[in-house]
Amino acid sequence: MARVVVDVMLKPEILDPQGQAIARKLPQLGFEGVAAVRQGKRFEIEVDGPVDEAALERVRKIAETLLANPVIENFEVHAE
Amino acid sequence: MARVVVDVMLKPEILDPQGQAIARKLPQLGFEGVAAVRQGKRFEIEVDGPVDEAALERVRKIAETLLANPVIENFEVHAE
Repeated sequence: MARVVVDVMLKPEILDPQGQAIARKLPQLGFEGVAAVRQGKRFEIEVDGPVDEAALERVRKIAETLLANPVIENFEVHAE
Repeated sequence: MARVVVDVMLKPEILDPQGQAIARKLPQLGFEGVAAVRQGKRFEIEVDGPVDEAALERVRKIAETLLANPVIENFEVHAE
């Protein structure tokens, strides 16, 4: 079984309150040196057959249709 | 600014109903050839200074403390 990963992140211009909440909490917990945090989603997709260009293209269609909201999110598809 | 990524996924033995719902929906949408889907989280952390072993270790501590629930989730930290 081969794995394809889809990473979905909010577009840079979209506010990410979850990430900001984490970033703000870090100094209170004693963690310095972090400038920003963005939170997104990661999907691990087990595909039948080899991870060739056709399989990646199929997963891109799935990401567009079901995993990401293209209005506010970007996604990246890669084999792993 | 350097980026460190934390991927957080449910442990393999933990049921993932979100991933299962996606996997079940795919054939209805005309997508064949997917055996399983697991959904997790991806955090992009902008750190001050270089991404050396000390910075990665600091992010590992952050992941353990704040980003992942080590009882039910595994995480991976890597520079990007």
